[in-house]
Amino acid sequence: MPELYEVMFRRRDVRAEFTGEPVADETLRRVLEAAHSAPSVGMSQPWDFLLIRDLATRQAFYDHVQHERDVFAATLQGEEAERFARIKIDGVLESSLSVVVTYDAARGGPAVLGRHAIADAGLYSVCLAIQNLWLAATAEGLGVGWVSFYREPFLSELLGIPEGVRPLAWLCLGPVSKLQEVPDLERHGWRRRAPLEDFLHFDKW
Amino acid sequence: MPELYEVMFRRRDVRAEFTGEPVADETLRRVLEAAHSAPSVGMSQPWDFLLIRDLATRQAFYDHVQHERDVFAATLQGEEAERFARIKIDGVLESSLSVVVTYDAARGGPAVLGRHAIADAGLYSVCLAIQNLWLAATAEGLGVGWVSFYREPFLSELLGIPEGVRPLAWLCLGPVSKLQEVPDLERHGWRRRAPLEDFLHFDKW
Repeated sequence: MPELYEVMFRRRDVRAEFTGEPVADETLRRVLEAAHSAPSVGMSQPWDFLLIRDLATRQAFYDHVQHERDVFAATLQGEEAERFARIKIDGVLESSLSVVVTYDAARGGPAVLGRHAIADAGLYSVCLAIQNLWLAATAEGLGVGWVSFYREPFLSELLGIPEGVRPLAWLCLGPVSKLQEVPDLERHGWRRRAPLEDFLHFDKW
Repeated sequence: MPELYEVMFRRRDVRAEFTGEPVADETLRRVLEAAHSAPSVGMSQPWDFLLIRDLATRQAFYDHVQHERDVFAATLQGEEAERFARIKIDGVLESSLSVVVTYDAARGGPAVLGRHAIADAGLYSVCLAIQNLWLAATAEGLGVGWVSFYREPFLSELLGIPEGVRPLAWLCLGPVSKLQEVPDLERHGWRRRAPLEDFLHFDKW
């Protein structure tokens, strides 16, 4: 199988397998250059990357994530609550570092080519960069874990993100003991992947 | 250079280079499986793929895009307007087919793991699938052109997309005569890419 497909299928959303070993500067650089090579609407490149190594910052974020975990858990009942209790939702403290990716809607403005009719197009660009980062990290033998149990205002305050810039992702990053063959949520019975056929339409919905 | 990085850097947003030659079924299948292998919040897989080959549908979309081009052009003045006049914004009629990618917020609900605090997390998942599609197509020797000069309600009506499902992208797809080395918007002097250094922050913004 070509490397590209192999990497796409091997990629996982990592929580428990981070080793905490350091990431070499040149490796991190390649991963970030991959992210930065993503397409963006009107070539606005509306992303920024915050590299978070400071332990106090990560601890503060971790504590917030645990609180939000409780908020979500309180919405569940019965078997669903039991399944969720077994699922680890972050590797903030165990991973080598985190990369926070943000979206600046003012970048390249006011006339961003391709965004006048779809305000969210800039948001989409940042996500494309995140997937490049994720694949590059996987190819480099690293794991990535996207943590989304947080409130955006908390994260903006914690990291001094200016008004008008929106944090899109907290990504844990670093070497891993292994990548699971089956995604965590499937292994823990939370939800199964459905086949491509279920998602295809021809000419009309 | 490893294939993954080579593909990322070679990838372009194609407008003028589509040849219109057919895409083999097995190639298209690999590209769509790549998209479908993307990560998704709570394993919700909130995407759908509409394969648009019908010429009347593409013509109707093309006409709408030309109208929205005029809307955007009317906001520009002087040199900016002249630069935009030289830029081709779509390959809807020249490409082999189009793939419309949508987002269904109800998929996997109501309790989508990882989305209670960030409503847009499902939207982000769909974008990750789009970048996988884009890279796989590039590796297969195809071009992709993301067209965003349209209003979402128009596209929903045209394709019969049900309420609650949002069209995120119209992607032109097909063989190309070549991929430009320099992105169109840079070649036409619309905007230059800035180096990675300008986008990095350490521990705080």
